[in-house]
Amino acid sequence: MKLAEGVKNGNRRALAQAISLVENNLAAKADLLQELFVHTGRAYVVGITGAPGAGKSSLVDKLTQVVRRQGKRVGIIAVDPTSPFSGGALLGDRIRMQDHVLDEGVFIRSMGSRGGLGGLSLATKEVVKLMDAAGFDLILVETVGVGQTELEIMHTADTTVVVLTPGLGDIIQTMKAGIMEIADVFAVNKADLDGAEKVIREVKTMLDFTRQRQWSPPVIPTVSVSGQGAPELWEAIEKHRRYLMETGSLEVLRKNRAEAEVLDLVAAGIKGLIKKEEVFYQATLNKVRKRSLPPDQAAALMIKQICKFIVKEDKEAADYD
Amino acid sequence: MKLAEGVKNGNRRALAQAISLVENNLAAKADLLQELFVHTGRAYVVGITGAPGAGKSSLVDKLTQVVRRQGKRVGIIAVDPTSPFSGGALLGDRIRMQDHVLDEGVFIRSMGSRGGLGGLSLATKEVVKLMDAAGFDLILVETVGVGQTELEIMHTADTTVVVLTPGLGDIIQTMKAGIMEIADVFAVNKADLDGAEKVIREVKTMLDFTRQRQWSPPVIPTVSVSGQGAPELWEAIEKHRRYLMETGSLEVLRKNRAEAEVLDLVAAGIKGLIKKEEVFYQATLNKVRKRSLPPDQAAALMIKQICKFIVKEDKEAADYD
Repeated sequence: MKLAEGVKNGNRRALAQAISLVENNLAAKADLLQELFVHTGRAYVVGITGAPGAGKSSLVDKLTQVVRRQGKRVGIIAVDPTSPFSGGALLGDRIRMQDHVLDEGVFIRSMGSRGGLGGLSLATKEVVKLMDAAGFDLILVETVGVGQTELEIMHTADTTVVVLTPGLGDIIQTMKAGIMEIADVFAVNKADLDGAEKVIREVKTMLDFTRQRQWSPPVIPTVSVSGQGAPELWEAIEKHRRYLMETGSLEVLRKNRAEAEVLDLVAAGIKGLIKKEEVFYQATLNKVRKRSLPPDQAAALMIKQICKFIVKEDKEAADYD
Repeated sequence: MKLAEGVKNGNRRALAQAISLVENNLAAKADLLQELFVHTGRAYVVGITGAPGAGKSSLVDKLTQVVRRQGKRVGIIAVDPTSPFSGGALLGDRIRMQDHVLDEGVFIRSMGSRGGLGGLSLATKEVVKLMDAAGFDLILVETVGVGQTELEIMHTADTTVVVLTPGLGDIIQTMKAGIMEIADVFAVNKADLDGAEKVIREVKTMLDFTRQRQWSPPVIPTVSVSGQGAPELWEAIEKHRRYLMETGSLEVLRKNRAEAEVLDLVAAGIKGLIKKEEVFYQATLNKVRKRSLPPDQAAALMIKQICKFIVKEDKEAADYD
């Protein structure tokens, strides 16, 4: 496949085209991802999340500057589930990223919620794979907000940075949103504002109470507008990466991720098969609706029906050979 | 089954015992739920959600008073994913609910996150079914916060009430959390405080921009401490119920819910089957880890393997008969 070849060689136009293919969920995408699969697994993936207005985009910008100085190639995916816009457009505060537009070692892509929400999370994971195959050393995935999609997307990251700021409301609520559990590093941005010290103290107290793990997430003050704290933030990310590698956690993390991906695909495959047994499926559902068949028995019947279909199809294919 | 009989007859001790069984995910629960399934589908389920501190518990209390005056029996499930406590304990502000402790027409149950998070959402749905089978006319499900679990739990509700308050931070962020999409009725609680008018105005403006649906969610000011607005809130819920019934939406809603439940059970069943094919599964995963087999091909192989197992087991059972 010519497109796969282009991506593998790091051709920017090929990569852009491949990303559009994945985003639009076109049929050719399966072949492309299959062909590139063997070339993935080399990039390090860092997720950056936090409330809207926390200054994530400019923090990503400043982090990119630090990493570029080390000669590493950086892929950036800016995900906004609340935005209908996708593609190369540099929207809103992403305009700041224009510094990197002429830099061949940086590739930026915005992703909005075109399809369903589950679709956005899957598409993001696939774009990570494309950038990985294209040879980017570091992939920064920036997400707006702390919703379900964002949490799903963060499961792609090897290191997750949660960006907090003074004056963005109660820290306890951020904690309740499930953010605390996924943070490997905290950045307290706008650290030059009043209240920053309080936020840092609160997070540290919270960590003392809730964490029982080996890795204790560092809390790094940053000022994304000036770039202050960006090298320290990068150092904290690197430290977490070394920790993951030295303890073997990175391998476990990636193993679990591969497993989750296969299981998700099994679930998706089963749903597709159910569609093929539509008549049987609707009849079974009708019984559930009339309360003559409990849901768990209905599910067992559906699984049996699908399996008969699969085994029959398989046998026919074998007979044909 | 004696326990099922007790629940069906509305025996409180039987119901409490059945709920513990479901919460602790004991083996006997499948039989119990199967036996009671035919007796479900009569209760109306109302979800009440919103940020911590919004006054949901006292609003539930005041709503219960209004509904009890109409002679209806009320089941209350107070879900807090961030709390490790479950059971009959009346914690924190649930102490206010003590008014109803001696009322046979009210049954209150707190549920905390004992097991995994997915488990809490499933357990809540099952407790709704138990209360439904026990003959409660109205089931109020109160959840703390706006996370993933809460959103899942709200999918159980026929009518969802979102409680907002002045001074609980930016309304736009509440919207981003996916809450706007699930609200059928808004309660602006603490409506006697400064800023309440502003919140009401903001929600209405937001609704004007985002909604294109037939049902326009009413925005009801309430003061849960005094009970002001509770009758109007109940009337809004009733109005939504009538709307759902008259347009046939309630049937569609429940049909979709039954379908989602069966599909979830199919997915769970498949995961269980994969466990039975552990050796094959691990070998397949290993190939994915070594990047010699793409995840989608691995998933297809897994489905085939499971199906062979099912069909074989089925055939053996038939031969044995």
